[in-house]
Amino acid sequence: MNIKLSEVAKLVGGNLVGDPNVVINSVARIDEANKGDITFLYLANFEKYFVSTGASAILVKPDFNKTRTDISYIEVKEPEKAFALILLKFFSPKFELKGIDKTAFVDPTSSLGKNVALGKNVVISANCRIGDNVRIFHNAVLLDNVEVGNDTILFQNVSIREDCKIGKRVIIHPGTVIGADGFGYQKDAEGVYHKVPQIGNVILEDDVEIGANSTIDRAALGSTIVKKGSKIDNLVQIAHNVSLGNNTIMSAQSGISGSVKVGNNSIFAGQVGVAGHLEIGDNIIFVAQSGVSKSITKPGVYFGSPAKDFKTAKILEAHYRNFPEYVERLNQLEEEIRKLREEINHNKS
Amino acid sequence: MNIKLSEVAKLVGGNLVGDPNVVINSVARIDEANKGDITFLYLANFEKYFVSTGASAILVKPDFNKTRTDISYIEVKEPEKAFALILLKFFSPKFELKGIDKTAFVDPTSSLGKNVALGKNVVISANCRIGDNVRIFHNAVLLDNVEVGNDTILFQNVSIREDCKIGKRVIIHPGTVIGADGFGYQKDAEGVYHKVPQIGNVILEDDVEIGANSTIDRAALGSTIVKKGSKIDNLVQIAHNVSLGNNTIMSAQSGISGSVKVGNNSIFAGQVGVAGHLEIGDNIIFVAQSGVSKSITKPGVYFGSPAKDFKTAKILEAHYRNFPEYVERLNQLEEEIRKLREEINHNKS
Amino acid sequence: MNIKLSEVAKLVGGNLVGDPNVVINSVARIDEANKGDITFLYLANFEKYFVSTGASAILVKPDFNKTRTDISYIEVKEPEKAFALILLKFFSPKFELKGIDKTAFVDPTSSLGKNVALGKNVVISANCRIGDNVRIFHNAVLLDNVEVGNDTILFQNVSIREDCKIGKRVIIHPGTVIGADGFGYQKDAEGVYHKVPQIGNVILEDDVEIGANSTIDRAALGSTIVKKGSKIDNLVQIAHNVSLGNNTIMSAQSGISGSVKVGNNSIFAGQVGVAGHLEIGDNIIFVAQSGVSKSITKPGVYFGSPAKDFKTAKILEAHYRNFPEYVERLNQLEEEIRKLREEINHNKS
Repeated sequence: MNIKLSEVAKLVGGNLVGDPNVVINSVARIDEANKGDITFLYLANFEKYFVSTGASAILVKPDFNKTRTDISYIEVKEPEKAFALILLKFFSPKFELKGIDKTAFVDPTSSLGKNVALGKNVVISANCRIGDNVRIFHNAVLLDNVEVGNDTILFQNVSIREDCKIGKRVIIHPGTVIGADGFGYQKDAEGVYHKVPQIGNVILEDDVEIGANSTIDRAALGSTIVKKGSKIDNLVQIAHNVSLGNNTIMSAQSGISGSVKVGNNSIFAGQVGVAGHLEIGDNIIFVAQSGVSKSITKPGVYFGSPAKDFKTAKILEAHYRNFPEYVERLNQLEEEIRKLREEINHNKS
Repeated sequence: MNIKLSEVAKLVGGNLVGDPNVVINSVARIDEANKGDITFLYLANFEKYFVSTGASAILVKPDFNKTRTDISYIEVKEPEKAFALILLKFFSPKFELKGIDKTAFVDPTSSLGKNVALGKNVVISANCRIGDNVRIFHNAVLLDNVEVGNDTILFQNVSIREDCKIGKRVIIHPGTVIGADGFGYQKDAEGVYHKVPQIGNVILEDDVEIGANSTIDRAALGSTIVKKGSKIDNLVQIAHNVSLGNNTIMSAQSGISGSVKVGNNSIFAGQVGVAGHLEIGDNIIFVAQSGVSKSITKPGVYFGSPAKDFKTAKILEAHYRNFPEYVERLNQLEEEIRKLREEINHNKS
Repeated sequence: MNIKLSEVAKLVGGNLVGDPNVVINSVARIDEANKGDITFLYLANFEKYFVSTGASAILVKPDFNKTRTDISYIEVKEPEKAFALILLKFFSPKFELKGIDKTAFVDPTSSLGKNVALGKNVVISANCRIGDNVRIFHNAVLLDNVEVGNDTILFQNVSIREDCKIGKRVIIHPGTVIGADGFGYQKDAEGVYHKVPQIGNVILEDDVEIGANSTIDRAALGSTIVKKGSKIDNLVQIAHNVSLGNNTIMSAQSGISGSVKVGNNSIFAGQVGVAGHLEIGDNIIFVAQSGVSKSITKPGVYFGSPAKDFKTAKILEAHYRNFPEYVERLNQLEEEIRKLREEINHNKS
């Protein structure tokens, strides 16, 4: 793809300084960019590459010192956002997959929308309804009664169990399992566990994205729900009957136990864990590795295992690091008091 | 399925209050139940739905205030257990899979029991022995010399490496990998790691259930063993040469390092980690995110990283939260002593 | 395989005590060994099995008390290393897979080296280059433009997205996903997340090994890199744009956030987490469950969440366990001072 720099400047609403006719045909990191690439200054420590980058054009903040004349500039307030916009508009991967491969299986009771693409060895079991423009990559398996909305992408080896409902424009990365049985047992008097049938399903609403090798379990009864626009990373566990609000972010290796209800716009950093049956409100941020053992509804940032208000957690951590000093002061106080006591006794006598 | 309420009452040994001829054809959560459904009061905070539920029947404790007359009741001491029983008896999912799909491959040296079902693209390599009534879903792969006992279910994309032995009535959820190489290397003088061949296997005994996308590594020598009746959740890691006792519970994202020996009836909550070569006894419960760095054989509840006796851990955590107060008291003591010292010196002079 | 014990002794450079013509045909743990097996004393607590083992030969340290005369000995300084050498030389699993299965698909634009083996239902998409002696097991999927170096093994259900480059002698265990999209979004004014296209790739250099069900995300721009000789366990997450140095060890369930740069010869024990954009130096060891929130470049051992120098962490943990005692001493000091104050006031009056 060849784009004139003037067209790029127009897209991002930036001020072009240099040659508007420069042709851009790719994007690259500033330290790896060559002729034809547009790049940007990502973080302060990337500025050192400015003097040597081979890029044809660069996105910069308006106050950037444009010392090189062999390069063209687009001035924008937020170069990173502008760069993302350029990526989206001109360089988005197409995830190309065309037609129904002859090794794909579609049960005759299932229906496919317009322009569906199915990769090799895809299995679509009975009574599924697949929307328009859906792409399902190789070796993915859908069991009975699965619904998939328009424009959704399921990557290879994705597994969707029976009765689950996937919305529109959903993306599920390879190896992820939607709708496996929730982890539910009843223990008898002999300590033997008996499986409690898990007869609910999973609902992923529109614009949800799920990373690779994550697992979202079906509800025991009713539905495990991930609401519109939520984004879930790799190796995340969402247990049965969880409800996750709109636009929630869950980073890699986080896990949410059964029946937890999470509000909207919350963020779980990596390796966070939430105990069962809790309520997590809106606009809550958990720092990485937090362990949440109580319901939290007050918006804010939380950290620790068990999780605490972040400001409190930082104060406690600072005290913790001072522990040896405090103990030393305690020792000195005891010594001081011993002496005082001695003196007083001495004075008395 | 249509069942008379009297039949349900008989199954659970409950006392029927209302119409014994009401027909039940499904189960549902109290807040989602409609005509034909039986439901139950799950937790105290579900009681608010009692006035409005559309359920035809409800399981309640004997002392429940049965104010509605348009609904029938079954009185039982433990409604949740009774409900699970009803699910098991009448509404268990069938995980239906029938016959040997023509795209399934069975090596001629392998044997299949009676009534085996194999999904699409299933691969059964050389010298495998598959028991009666086994169901193996689409795209699952068994390498050489694998044994699978009667009535076992392997879901789609399950991968079982060579020489592993799977018991009877085992359930393995999608994407789980049994028998990958243990993580064993030897470092040479140049810091280069050389693979130690992992020539053991994995044994899953009868009635074991393993969640989705978990990994159980083969032993370096001998066997990694999960004993009868143990239940393992999603994304769990069990390293080489681990031995897990009977009726052990491991919740999601927990991990056990190499050569750990775990007794019977222990419980690992979510995201627990156990260091290598330890011994964990019977009837031990690890609270979520615990990190176990020493052998623990005394039955009880443990928490923290490193893990401590739960009561101790709670006391320590309470002190930790009081840290700012203690430091303030330390400051005041120092000030107080300074004053006392001054006064004494003053008195002396 | 039948090997004379003299041949084994020669391989490991050991001193043979006993019958050099004893035939060895297998290896086993000392507690499970029978006639024909060679074994070794793994840990002190295995010594109890020496009196009863059925092994034909045993690797021991030179000072071992060789009380049994019905068994032959090879004396070596490091029995465990010698045993690994024997395993490697004589008993390595062959991971046998031969020929191109007729159900495997290779796009006509892709090339295969000599002696390549492809299992059932393998998918090799457009413009891939597969080296000599590569073995790709059943149901593995490679999207477009993937390169795989000579002698590499990809196990079943491995998924490699477009443009990724896999080196020579790499091993990837079942279910692992290489090159899924990095977790990158931009939030708009309404709190809606928009995907930032991830147009980079993943490079795994020579001699890298990746466990089962791990995930290594493609870079947003440029490459996520795992350098030569690094070994990664099961269920590990490596985010976009991470660079991992040579001979790095990452144990199960560890995770590294985006754009982290890790030096050479470092070790991450299980369930370690590293926050984004940090720099981790050479020869750094993180104890299990550590949480790394700041760059660390000084070689050494670190522990805790947030991670601290290990010696410091142990001192702090010891103080933490003493917390109740310290608080008691604080209480006593307050009482003591109260009394002193009283006495002084009394003396004054």
